[in-house]
Amino acid sequence: MKQATLQELASLVGGEIEGDAQTVIIGVTGIREAGPGQITFFSNPRYASALLETRASAVIIGKAVKLPERPPAGGRGAPAFLRVENPYYAYSQIARFFFSRPHVPSGISEWAVIGRGVRMGRDVSVHPFVVVGEGAEIGDRVTLSVGVYVGEGSVIGEESVLYPHVTVREGVRIGRRVIIHSGAVIGSDGFGYATQGGKHHKIPQVGGVVIEDDVEIGAGVMIDRAALGQTRIGRGTKIDNLVQVAHNVVIGDDCLVVAQAGIAGSAQIGSQVTLAGQAGVAGHLRIGDRATVSGQAGVTKDVRPGETVSGFPAIPHREWLKVQANLYRLPAIRGALTEIEARVRRLEELLKAATSNEQRAMRKKG
Amino acid sequence: MKQATLQELASLVGGEIEGDAQTVIIGVTGIREAGPGQITFFSNPRYASALLETRASAVIIGKAVKLPERPPAGGRGAPAFLRVENPYYAYSQIARFFFSRPHVPSGISEWAVIGRGVRMGRDVSVHPFVVVGEGAEIGDRVTLSVGVYVGEGSVIGEESVLYPHVTVREGVRIGRRVIIHSGAVIGSDGFGYATQGGKHHKIPQVGGVVIEDDVEIGAGVMIDRAALGQTRIGRGTKIDNLVQVAHNVVIGDDCLVVAQAGIAGSAQIGSQVTLAGQAGVAGHLRIGDRATVSGQAGVTKDVRPGETVSGFPAIPHREWLKVQANLYRLPAIRGALTEIEARVRRLEELLKAATSNEQRAMRKKG
Amino acid sequence: MKQATLQELASLVGGEIEGDAQTVIIGVTGIREAGPGQITFFSNPRYASALLETRASAVIIGKAVKLPERPPAGGRGAPAFLRVENPYYAYSQIARFFFSRPHVPSGISEWAVIGRGVRMGRDVSVHPFVVVGEGAEIGDRVTLSVGVYVGEGSVIGEESVLYPHVTVREGVRIGRRVIIHSGAVIGSDGFGYATQGGKHHKIPQVGGVVIEDDVEIGAGVMIDRAALGQTRIGRGTKIDNLVQVAHNVVIGDDCLVVAQAGIAGSAQIGSQVTLAGQAGVAGHLRIGDRATVSGQAGVTKDVRPGETVSGFPAIPHREWLKVQANLYRLPAIRGALTEIEARVRRLEELLKAATSNEQRAMRKKG
Repeated sequence: MKQATLQELASLVGGEIEGDAQTVIIGVTGIREAGPGQITFFSNPRYASALLETRASAVIIGKAVKLPERPPAGGRGAPAFLRVENPYYAYSQIARFFFSRPHVPSGISEWAVIGRGVRMGRDVSVHPFVVVGEGAEIGDRVTLSVGVYVGEGSVIGEESVLYPHVTVREGVRIGRRVIIHSGAVIGSDGFGYATQGGKHHKIPQVGGVVIEDDVEIGAGVMIDRAALGQTRIGRGTKIDNLVQVAHNVVIGDDCLVVAQAGIAGSAQIGSQVTLAGQAGVAGHLRIGDRATVSGQAGVTKDVRPGETVSGFPAIPHREWLKVQANLYRLPAIRGALTEIEARVRRLEELLKAATSNEQRAMRKKG
Repeated sequence: MKQATLQELASLVGGEIEGDAQTVIIGVTGIREAGPGQITFFSNPRYASALLETRASAVIIGKAVKLPERPPAGGRGAPAFLRVENPYYAYSQIARFFFSRPHVPSGISEWAVIGRGVRMGRDVSVHPFVVVGEGAEIGDRVTLSVGVYVGEGSVIGEESVLYPHVTVREGVRIGRRVIIHSGAVIGSDGFGYATQGGKHHKIPQVGGVVIEDDVEIGAGVMIDRAALGQTRIGRGTKIDNLVQVAHNVVIGDDCLVVAQAGIAGSAQIGSQVTLAGQAGVAGHLRIGDRATVSGQAGVTKDVRPGETVSGFPAIPHREWLKVQANLYRLPAIRGALTEIEARVRRLEELLKAATSNEQRAMRKKG
Repeated sequence: MKQATLQELASLVGGEIEGDAQTVIIGVTGIREAGPGQITFFSNPRYASALLETRASAVIIGKAVKLPERPPAGGRGAPAFLRVENPYYAYSQIARFFFSRPHVPSGISEWAVIGRGVRMGRDVSVHPFVVVGEGAEIGDRVTLSVGVYVGEGSVIGEESVLYPHVTVREGVRIGRRVIIHSGAVIGSDGFGYATQGGKHHKIPQVGGVVIEDDVEIGAGVMIDRAALGQTRIGRGTKIDNLVQVAHNVVIGDDCLVVAQAGIAGSAQIGSQVTLAGQAGVAGHLRIGDRATVSGQAGVTKDVRPGETVSGFPAIPHREWLKVQANLYRLPAIRGALTEIEARVRRLEELLKAATSNEQRAMRKKG
């Protein structure tokens, strides 16, 4: 079991200690679950009360956060604090320190089928019921879990991990340190047909897929191969479960694509873009760098860099908030309109009456 | 082939017979498909005409339903009726009587790989290309179909059935009589990253998943393991195909989660909740007991117990109906507004003219 | 490597040549990527500039398209043109000519498990870790890729291709030339329960699934078996990735169902229907022939043949466009309403003042 002093953890994450730097830490967990010997983190203000009550030996906390009054002495000491710029990031580093397990290569299972001409790296783990097609390349320290399929000529970069039942079709290039979760399919045919006389004729899907380094792909994600050319996922992009990436889509670097989002064919997504859950992007569009698409939004035209869009069809989020506010006031708006209509009618009647009176008066005078 | 008298079926479901109690029933099917020797059920009023024409020997029907006039004699006798409180429930019991097959243990396939220290129950069926990881526990009468993967230390409760190509990652606890359909993945990593300098750093996902007794999980469902702690699906909850359940979600007992719904991280769903198809629930929210989320709705704040919500962002269904009605009248509302604007302008002109006349009159008088 | 003269390709697709009919073509690709010896196609006007610059030896183009001015001589000759009615369709035919690989039967892998009484066709390819259940029928020239499961008594028609990790449960009938992509599940249990006392009791799902000839089913698609009777996908229908088809759904011929769409139980979809991405269709509805459901739309009532519907709840597209236009003008509408209200109030005040003046005048006179 790993352990470290708070001092050592502070060196790891670059923080400053308030309290006993020699506190020995043997694990990391949530603020409510943590007990003696454990470090936890505080970043979400909704857990402020938990901060008062935590039994953790140490708490990672933002540099600017004011600590609440010392809790009433309850037989336990106050935790030490580790002050950092980004507590969640420091937590991720410390969690990796405690939880990351070294890759222990298990070699190639007797129950795996390795095609001719496969270039197999060193220190790999190839589990039972894996099939690697002819001419594929498997990098050093790669893990192909139970039932993984790697098609002919595909390449899996060093230290990548493919969880059970991942399918990588032929002619796919996967970078280094890529993680692909169970049930994901990379390189399935794109959805392309020429319609003639009401019938749909398949366009051969003969392009490939490129997954760059440090990408993570969720469980049940489908990434289609290009019709021609390449479908591409940029370095460091993270894709959540059940996402659809159609043929010829290009996603930039360091994006977040949340669960059940869908990206239609040939769309081009910039870098550091966030697509929230169940969002959809229509085909052939461009989403600029650092743009955000809100949950369940449907994007039907290009989105400028840095913009946040919401709704269907998606519009800039600020505009959408105004629309939304008024949408939910629609019954009141309609009520107001009906009331005004009545007032206008009353005015019209009054004015008509007034005019008649006047005319009568005129006639009398006349 | 199983058979039973109507009398025996009435004892099974607790109903009352109208007609010949000794009618022999050899099967159960839909009201249109049923023929002599079969029992069917009537619960959806849209099938009233089918009730007149059914060739079934017996019909399960609600206690209060008035039977239509006897159909004109057509060479066939009228069906017997089995009166019950809940015809659909009685049908489910009778269908189980006719269709349930006893578990016939097939033993452990020679083509399965069982890890060290696995505790294997009695009378199991472990099919080809199954892998059970080290230290896992498989309960009595469990079925692990073709290609199922059970990770290290995971537990599968008695009489559970895992269909082909189910993935259960390490450290997952599955209760008794749980059914998991093909392609489902239980225990994939949650989607958790700390973003620093525009890059996303993986938070180790080291929690587990608990699936309680009598849960059913559809094909292609993804249930992520917790970052810390447990993702939990309560007893008797039924999940349809392609549903996403993110890390640290807690779902209560006896819920229905319909196809393609998605639940974001740390959301807490009460008991007897219904999430309709393609609905989405944002992270960290609470959905109260017996609440209903309508199809395609997007929930962005807590939902009170018993409430039905619709739309995006989801609001109480009754309010939404009013909004919706007015939304689709928007072109008319806008038209009315334009018309009123014209009438107001006319009034303004008239009044201005009247005032001018008056002033002129005044001046004249003066 | 295949090659053909432009003359031969023109015979294949029925087009007319402008330029050198003896041009030798050795491949087909996109208009930007194409080089000497390659044919490409022009159908999307947004690529007009690419047409001027293409290095392709030949371009498939519509009969009526006017060619732009000859590009300035740049050391390369102008491409030849192949004039056709439907360039995209001609492209699909030529692409199939160049890219289609003949089925080379690999026989039955030693690592496959074939049940008793299986009728195995001629010239099949059955890859490692395939399981075919008892009594199943596999047609001639069928490919069952790695890890495919075919349940007891299921039928796979001639020349069908099942990609890695496809699950076909028991009692499913799949036609000829059907393509099923990785991770798809055909014949999982429908989502059917009778609720009694707050608990959900499973209805046995004992129907089947029929997939007719020439259907293509995307990766990660889930098609549930019927409760009773059959779930049915009509001839020539194409289904994109991650689509949900619930129990007892009937889809007609030559439909397109785009990624992540969902069709609830017992819905009946006509022929030549398009369901766009992420669309949803509620249970028991009818969608008429040639209807289109827009992306993310939610259909809650029947749709007439030929109609296009959009929005949630879905309404005819033309109406929806008007609603949508006004929806996004809602802040302006509300502003206009507020302004009118002020003008009406002013009119009321003026009129009140005028009346008072008049009355005072009256009194004075009186």
